[in-house]
Amino acid sequence: MKNTVRTWLQLWLLVLLLAAQPAAMAQSGDSLPSWNDGAVKQGIEAFVRQATTASSAGWVPGAERIAVFDNDGTLWSEQPMYFQFLFALDQVKAMAPAHPEWKTTAPFDAVLAGDVKAVLAGGDKGMAQILMATHTGMDTEQFSQSVSAWVASARHPRSGRPFTDMVYQPMLELLALLRENGFKIYIVSGGTVEFMRAWSERVYGIPPEQVIGTSFVTRFDRGADGRPVLRREAKLDFLDDGPGKPVAIQKYIGRRPVFAFGNSDGDLQMLQWTAAGPGARFMGLVHHTDGEREWAYDRASSIGRLDKALDEATARRWTVVDMKRDWKRVYPFP
Amino acid sequence: MKNTVRTWLQLWLLVLLLAAQPAAMAQSGDSLPSWNDGAVKQGIEAFVRQATTASSAGWVPGAERIAVFDNDGTLWSEQPMYFQFLFALDQVKAMAPAHPEWKTTAPFDAVLAGDVKAVLAGGDKGMAQILMATHTGMDTEQFSQSVSAWVASARHPRSGRPFTDMVYQPMLELLALLRENGFKIYIVSGGTVEFMRAWSERVYGIPPEQVIGTSFVTRFDRGADGRPVLRREAKLDFLDDGPGKPVAIQKYIGRRPVFAFGNSDGDLQMLQWTAAGPGARFMGLVHHTDGEREWAYDRASSIGRLDKALDEATARRWTVVDMKRDWKRVYPFP
Repeated sequence: MKNTVRTWLQLWLLVLLLAAQPAAMAQSGDSLPSWNDGAVKQGIEAFVRQATTASSAGWVPGAERIAVFDNDGTLWSEQPMYFQFLFALDQVKAMAPAHPEWKTTAPFDAVLAGDVKAVLAGGDKGMAQILMATHTGMDTEQFSQSVSAWVASARHPRSGRPFTDMVYQPMLELLALLRENGFKIYIVSGGTVEFMRAWSERVYGIPPEQVIGTSFVTRFDRGADGRPVLRREAKLDFLDDGPGKPVAIQKYIGRRPVFAFGNSDGDLQMLQWTAAGPGARFMGLVHHTDGEREWAYDRASSIGRLDKALDEATARRWTVVDMKRDWKRVYPFP
Repeated sequence: MKNTVRTWLQLWLLVLLLAAQPAAMAQSGDSLPSWNDGAVKQGIEAFVRQATTASSAGWVPGAERIAVFDNDGTLWSEQPMYFQFLFALDQVKAMAPAHPEWKTTAPFDAVLAGDVKAVLAGGDKGMAQILMATHTGMDTEQFSQSVSAWVASARHPRSGRPFTDMVYQPMLELLALLRENGFKIYIVSGGTVEFMRAWSERVYGIPPEQVIGTSFVTRFDRGADGRPVLRREAKLDFLDDGPGKPVAIQKYIGRRPVFAFGNSDGDLQMLQWTAAGPGARFMGLVHHTDGEREWAYDRASSIGRLDKALDEATARRWTVVDMKRDWKRVYPFP
């Protein structure tokens, strides 16, 4: 092959060609180095290769390359409890000076005394009160700042690392592979949307407008200085879990995804909705089987229960990632 | 300048460079040929030039280049009534065979008799009933198909042209200019989101996931064949008008826009929210001043009333497009 380009025309044609064809999957290297070789890795690679090959039966036009990922337990860990709950507990402490009454009011008194067992004994109602008190009342900018401050300082109780280090290295590689191949990636999470948006772009490369989650009602109002603000009201706006996930996908994206990944029964309807479209599609589940490097839990777990979705994935031959078997490493850190 | 490129390295560097720099504003041609020269056109061009010039005080980082546009009266006409209302009236006729009771039930009887005056005399309540009956009850795919069928066959009562021809040529040029300069463009409309998504990509180049609007509740369900469907319920989910627009922007996009365009008081809070951010921003209004080529209406109109927003735009020196003065042509057709 000549190593010169003769005319500007030829050069521009080449540029056009490059722009029209998303970079083919790197043949010179392994795009998924943290995945062990096997059916799961091969299945992912084959789907992406076919989706981006115009002559393939599995080809997916560029605009239709929508991929959706659950967050907790799919992109980062969710033990010993959802990280957003740990944020809420820390926020109670941070906000306590402005709430002297919390010292003598359940469930806040237990949080302030550091008695997590008592907090959990208070059940879902106590946890809901804590979420409400720490996630609403302020304006959207104030809330985002409190999340950013927490992400910068808080540490995971087991690893001692920032929570944003507790992301799965193999999934980061999968996100990059999809992105390089022209997929538009969305998070569709039961967690609240503005909690994730404060760090999703830096950590996952997923911009705020591609993060969908549970939301509180906000109200257009004026701040103390007269500038418009959006106040977070103590009222749930949308619950983005289970059947809410396909509803949210339609509402926010308006297209059916061709690629979906989750890890729990809360993701089942999102996977069903993705599976029900025409043409090539990929449905995947992360199965938490690694009690040493991460955690092992499924059908009996209260957090991230994986039961019905596991049965359906098996019956319909969706991809099930066995974390222990399929992942060479779990986290980006050693 | 040499017309050869010596090595692949040089070629790739050039490609990299091209990818990294959004095409500068065309100096060889006019990006806004349907806009008359004057302060409005110059203001738009100056904003875009500065937003994309890293050394400028008005520079906007790529990820922050979010532009929001109202639809009715801003991107396409909204007279003699919102086009979505005309769709609803036509749908009553299309759906009538399955609803024999409509022949004797107001407001449907008037619609079927072609008596638009009687329909309008029924006021907002009658119109709401018509919208409800024609926009809910079916699943999301069925609804999208009905919109597509209507768009393909219906004609505007004055021009006799497809409704999607009634878009403003100067605004199409503005959308293209922004897109070429790395802006991500969203529609934020009081109309319902799935009505617009059926044609927004083809007509405006705006994909469904960048269309925000009023929505009905949808419910995850099973169709007759057992496949999952999303049923459109007879319940309003979100009203995307007035103060709802900044709420929707935060909910769907999660970033404050730097560029916003509307045409009525329903866009005021969207403009205020856009204006309240730091750094360079652009707020614009289309003022319908052209009773010959389009329609002339503002403070006294029930459709697209422009009163408070016009006062605030004047006071705060936002851009006000005088359609008659600033637009060389209105529609793409002659």
